[in-house]
Amino acid sequence: MAEFALIDLIRARCAVAREDVRLGIGDDAALLAVPAGQTLAVSTDTLVSGVHFPKDTAPFDIGWKSLAVNLSDLAAMGATPAWATLALTLPDADAAWTAAFADGFAVLAREFDLALVGGDTTQGPLSITVTVHGFVPESLALRRSGAKVGDAVFVTGTLGDAAAGLALLQGPGVAGKAQEHLLARLNRPTPRVAQGLLLRARAHACIDVSDGLVADLGHICHASAVGAEIDLTLLPASPALLGLVAAEARVPLQLAGGDDYELCFSAAPAIATELLNDLARSGCAATRIGRIVAEPGVRVRAADGSLVASPRPGWEHFSP
Amino acid sequence: MAEFALIDLIRARCAVAREDVRLGIGDDAALLAVPAGQTLAVSTDTLVSGVHFPKDTAPFDIGWKSLAVNLSDLAAMGATPAWATLALTLPDADAAWTAAFADGFAVLAREFDLALVGGDTTQGPLSITVTVHGFVPESLALRRSGAKVGDAVFVTGTLGDAAAGLALLQGPGVAGKAQEHLLARLNRPTPRVAQGLLLRARAHACIDVSDGLVADLGHICHASAVGAEIDLTLLPASPALLGLVAAEARVPLQLAGGDDYELCFSAAPAIATELLNDLARSGCAATRIGRIVAEPGVRVRAADGSLVASPRPGWEHFSP
Repeated sequence: MAEFALIDLIRARCAVAREDVRLGIGDDAALLAVPAGQTLAVSTDTLVSGVHFPKDTAPFDIGWKSLAVNLSDLAAMGATPAWATLALTLPDADAAWTAAFADGFAVLAREFDLALVGGDTTQGPLSITVTVHGFVPESLALRRSGAKVGDAVFVTGTLGDAAAGLALLQGPGVAGKAQEHLLARLNRPTPRVAQGLLLRARAHACIDVSDGLVADLGHICHASAVGAEIDLTLLPASPALLGLVAAEARVPLQLAGGDDYELCFSAAPAIATELLNDLARSGCAATRIGRIVAEPGVRVRAADGSLVASPRPGWEHFSP
Repeated sequence: MAEFALIDLIRARCAVAREDVRLGIGDDAALLAVPAGQTLAVSTDTLVSGVHFPKDTAPFDIGWKSLAVNLSDLAAMGATPAWATLALTLPDADAAWTAAFADGFAVLAREFDLALVGGDTTQGPLSITVTVHGFVPESLALRRSGAKVGDAVFVTGTLGDAAAGLALLQGPGVAGKAQEHLLARLNRPTPRVAQGLLLRARAHACIDVSDGLVADLGHICHASAVGAEIDLTLLPASPALLGLVAAEARVPLQLAGGDDYELCFSAAPAIATELLNDLARSGCAATRIGRIVAEPGVRVRAADGSLVASPRPGWEHFSP
C-alpha cells in the first residue's frame, strides 16, 4: 500500500465535519478559523513504540491513546477540543494495522467533535505525534501557576490503574474483569474534557496526571511557588486496583505510576462541596486529597500524620 | 542530562518573544491569540533519521531543516509564520547534540519571528516532528486547487540541487565551493516565505516542491482538475549543478529529485512579467517553465517539442 492510499484510508475513517475547518487534509497546510473571543490552546505529545506502549499493543488502542493523551492536555487547560494533526511513522505500510489505528483514533475524535486537519505519513520506527488544538477564553484557562496557600487539592477518577495494568502485562497476565479494567485504563484512557470545562474559573491551578501524581502536583507547586501535602488514605483507588494489588504495592502505583490521565487541581476549600457535586454529576467524580501549603515540595502523609517516603519521582525520559 | 534540562536548553536557545503568545512552553498547552481577520494555517512534517536525512547529518542542519520544511508549507499557502511546536525523539540525552540542533532551529525561528510554544521530548529512534502555525486572510490563501487552463507555470529558485547534494554524499564526496553549495541546498533549504506572500491573490495555485517537480505539480493538476506541460529547456539550474552534473543526469534530479523546497505555482500569463520582476526583487527569482492545459497529467517536452519520458515519480514512502 502506497503512502497516499494510507493517507486516504486514515482520512476516510477519521472524517468529522466542522464549519471552522476552511481547508482540511490535502493541501500544504490546513486553514482554520478560531472563533472570536477564544484563544487557541495547542499541545503536542509523541508516543514511541516500546517506550510509551508495549510493542504488541493493539493498533486500535495505540490510535485511541495517541489522541487521548493529547486531549488530556487540553482538558487540563479547560479547553474545548477542535482540531488535530497526526504525524504517523510506520515501519511498513500495513493497511489492516493502519485501519485499526485510525478506528481507535476516530472513536475519540468523533466523541469530542475533533477534526483531523492534516498530518504526515513517513516510514521509520513506529512513532506517533499528535498536535491538538482547542479553544478557551483566555481569562478562563486553567494554568499550573495559580495555586494558593490554603487551597484544597483534588484529583478526578482513580489513580494507579494504568500502572497496575502495565505490571499485569509484564507479569501475571490479564484474565478476569478486574484485570481487563486495569488494562483498559492503560490502553484507552478517558480524557477528562468535560471535567476540565467544569473547572474553568473555579480551579486555581490544574494539570493532567501523566507522569505520576507526586511529579505532576510538583509541577503545579513549582509553577505556583507553593508546596502541597497529600493524605495517603484519601487517594482514590478503583475496586479493581483494591482487589488485585496489596496496599504496599498499591501506594507507589498511585503516587508515581503515571499514565493516569486524571486531572489534579487546586481550588478554594469554600467551593469544594459544590465542585465535587458538579464533577460527580458530570460522570467522573473527584476526590479531595490534600492541601496547598507554603513550604515548597510535595509531601505525602500517612493516617497518623507521619511523612511517607515518596517513591521514585514520576516518569522522566533519559533518567539514569 | 535529564528530560527537563533538555527542554530548558532548547527553550533558552529558541526564545523569540511574541505578544500573541499568551502562555508559552511549560504548561499543559500553549495559549495563543490569532489576530482578527486571519485564518490559522497549520502544517506538520516529520523527519526520520536515515530516511529524511543521512544518519551522520550535523545536528545544526537537522534542526534547521526540521523547521525549514515546515515553513516551506506555510510559504506555499501564502501564510506568515507565527508559532511552532517541536516533538523531538532522541536515542539519548546528548546535551551538545541537542544544543546544536536547537541552534539550527533557532536561526530560522529568529529570521521568521517564529515562537516555539510547546513540544515533547521523548526517548527513542531519532525523529523530529514540527507543527507550524501561520496566518493568512482566508481569501488570500494559496491553494493547490485554483489552477486554470491557460495559466503559466512557474518555479522559484533552482531545481535538483538538493538531490545532487545527496548524490555527492553517497558518491564522490564534497570538496569545493560548488559541492558545498549543493550540500547546503540539501541540509539548509531556504523556505520561500517572502515569495509566498508576494503570490497572495496573484497565483491561482501553489505548492512547495518537496517530493519532486513532476510529482508536486501533479498534485496541483489533480486538485485543480487540469494538466500541465513543462518545457525541459526552461527548468532553472544552479551554476553548481550545471558545472558538476552532466545534462542526462541533471534532468531526473530537476524533475523528480525532491527536497528542493521551492514554490511551484500557476498564474495568469498577463501578470507574468510583473510577478517575475517582484519575485526577482524579493531576493529569489522565479522562472516560467510551462503552462496549464486541459488534458490531465504532467508532461515534459524537449526543445523540439517531443515528449520526454518522465523519470520515476517523486519520493513516496512505502513505494515498492
